[in-house]
Amino acid sequence: MDNAATTAQKPAVVSESMIKILQGQYGNSSRGAHGYSLASYRVAERARNQIKNLFHTAEQYEVAFTNNATVALNEVLKGLIKPGDHVITTSWEHNSVLRPLYQLEAQGVFLDIVSSEPISGRLNYDEFLQKLRPTTKAVICNHASNVTGNLLDLARIKKFCVQHDLFLIVDASQTAGMVPIDLSDGKIAALCFTGHKSLYGPQGTGGVCVRKDVPLEPVLTGGDGMQSFSKVQPQELPTLLEAGTLNIPGLAGLAASVEWLKGKPDTSDLGDYFYQEAQKITGLTMYGDFSAPRVNVFSINLQEAESAIVSDLLWEEFEIATRPGYHCAPLMHKALHTADRGTVRLSFSYFTTKKEVERVLAALKNLASR
Amino acid sequence: MDNAATTAQKPAVVSESMIKILQGQYGNSSRGAHGYSLASYRVAERARNQIKNLFHTAEQYEVAFTNNATVALNEVLKGLIKPGDHVITTSWEHNSVLRPLYQLEAQGVFLDIVSSEPISGRLNYDEFLQKLRPTTKAVICNHASNVTGNLLDLARIKKFCVQHDLFLIVDASQTAGMVPIDLSDGKIAALCFTGHKSLYGPQGTGGVCVRKDVPLEPVLTGGDGMQSFSKVQPQELPTLLEAGTLNIPGLAGLAASVEWLKGKPDTSDLGDYFYQEAQKITGLTMYGDFSAPRVNVFSINLQEAESAIVSDLLWEEFEIATRPGYHCAPLMHKALHTADRGTVRLSFSYFTTKKEVERVLAALKNLASR
Repeated sequence: MDNAATTAQKPAVVSESMIKILQGQYGNSSRGAHGYSLASYRVAERARNQIKNLFHTAEQYEVAFTNNATVALNEVLKGLIKPGDHVITTSWEHNSVLRPLYQLEAQGVFLDIVSSEPISGRLNYDEFLQKLRPTTKAVICNHASNVTGNLLDLARIKKFCVQHDLFLIVDASQTAGMVPIDLSDGKIAALCFTGHKSLYGPQGTGGVCVRKDVPLEPVLTGGDGMQSFSKVQPQELPTLLEAGTLNIPGLAGLAASVEWLKGKPDTSDLGDYFYQEAQKITGLTMYGDFSAPRVNVFSINLQEAESAIVSDLLWEEFEIATRPGYHCAPLMHKALHTADRGTVRLSFSYFTTKKEVERVLAALKNLASR
Repeated sequence: MDNAATTAQKPAVVSESMIKILQGQYGNSSRGAHGYSLASYRVAERARNQIKNLFHTAEQYEVAFTNNATVALNEVLKGLIKPGDHVITTSWEHNSVLRPLYQLEAQGVFLDIVSSEPISGRLNYDEFLQKLRPTTKAVICNHASNVTGNLLDLARIKKFCVQHDLFLIVDASQTAGMVPIDLSDGKIAALCFTGHKSLYGPQGTGGVCVRKDVPLEPVLTGGDGMQSFSKVQPQELPTLLEAGTLNIPGLAGLAASVEWLKGKPDTSDLGDYFYQEAQKITGLTMYGDFSAPRVNVFSINLQEAESAIVSDLLWEEFEIATRPGYHCAPLMHKALHTADRGTVRLSFSYFTTKKEVERVLAALKNLASR
């Protein structure tokens, strides 16, 4: 029940495809033209094409791989936003967005944050327009809150960004693979994703789909295997954002898991069931907006208990893994008035069964009655 | 024969340990306190301890993991060196050092580069003192040239840095696992390493041993799983340099390969044999200093041929994988006078056999005679 942190259970194709790399002889992608190097290059390109197809990038985007969403977000935020720029972000953001933005703020970037409502965590969408300035350059939005599971009204944000000519940067860490994402209208400047959550790939993978016209200065620079005499990182994507050696075994696993994901049925029914039943438990508070589209991530508290204690009891007595605390999203907890005790987060994966959900509900009922 | 780019052949323990992670249920390290998360935390700590033992870090260093040496070098160089500082580096450096330094130079850092001799690529060590300024803050050195295989006189550089109170940053990409490295005297400020070369770990691993008193500002920031309400990255190592999710399967592989490496015999004899025999081939030029300690990386050219053509022929006709061109080390090629055609690089691994070396020598002899 802690799949929003990482999906611990992976489809078998992930390890199978990685074993093939590790037990075979795969070289360094884009370093040399011999068969071992080319074999690795083809693995990277296969993963790139899988990601392009998944997000319907068409020709206007390139995919660059990083080792997680955090690196991708740092590359995009620090590569695009410069002192004097104004940006708008939201109280849903993870520290992987907030901390880079706070660093930029210290360097002279102006930052405004759209607030959320208590309990529901609903975003106050009207504030985007209120916070708009002539110097506003970009909007950075979490596609779904990793605390409440609320899904962003992306169509509304896209429209706002197009209307005011703003770069839209989307953190899809909690949605990539779980919610359909279609970049073909070209309205998103950069979509950052991680491989090890709802894409079911291994840890050590992630990246960004960047629209090719987005002007990025590289944050990380180094060897690219090709243009050795250039003093600067080559401007071409994906090389611009891929200094150093790629994680080829990881990308083989990611390509396999993205392929596996194709056509998998929607599992939101199980979430609806959990919500309906959990609501009936006396003393259980549930945070989030249940009148709008969402992902299967739930934040709860029991009576006045600390989230860490509830989470520990769930693990120690019932062997149910949940995540207590603040989930690296401080502003969300301030909005929910849970900054003192956090929330217990339950998050489903494709492998979560109705039986498991029933076991969780029984455990929560048991704890709530104490 | 292209093991300096990556050791394509890994010991069996690497894939075995990674399969265990990928087929088991491993959570997100330092995110939550349930068994799945703790299992991953223990994998990371095991890898950290293996690296600490390998490099004899003692208590004064911490190990932070990144996905390759490039990210580690960017973190250290950009985290330590600030506008107005002067730094000294060498013509042996890879673009993973040079490009970050050129970026810093554009921001007001002063950069001096120690030159090398033609053909031998020997470093002109006297220049370190000549280039010293009152504002010199750091010295950045490649522990071994990835072009010539020349090994740095590290004792001499350590002495110089201690004498003048300079931070010494070492790029051990080509030496970690191949040459003993002992940090216990505390004279190196930061040692950056990659996992997928002579440590025989998987691609997607690397990191840095940082002396705890080195003041670093984090280049990449994000979630740390613990101090959610801090607006800045926690100052404690390794958290300071480990924003976002770690590559746990990769680190399991790295821990296994470092364990495997222990007590493996020195393989420099095979390199000596290659050098002795290759020297006898008419029309073969060999670059490097063969009168001083070195690693088994050799750069050659045949007659006046382009390195790319020789390398292609070695692959197409003899199925021998080598790397032609510039190996991301532009200044080395300027020094060697090979900036027009590069060199053919041959680099050995622990798995390289005498039979293979003989096959390579025969192929070179064949090509040189055409």
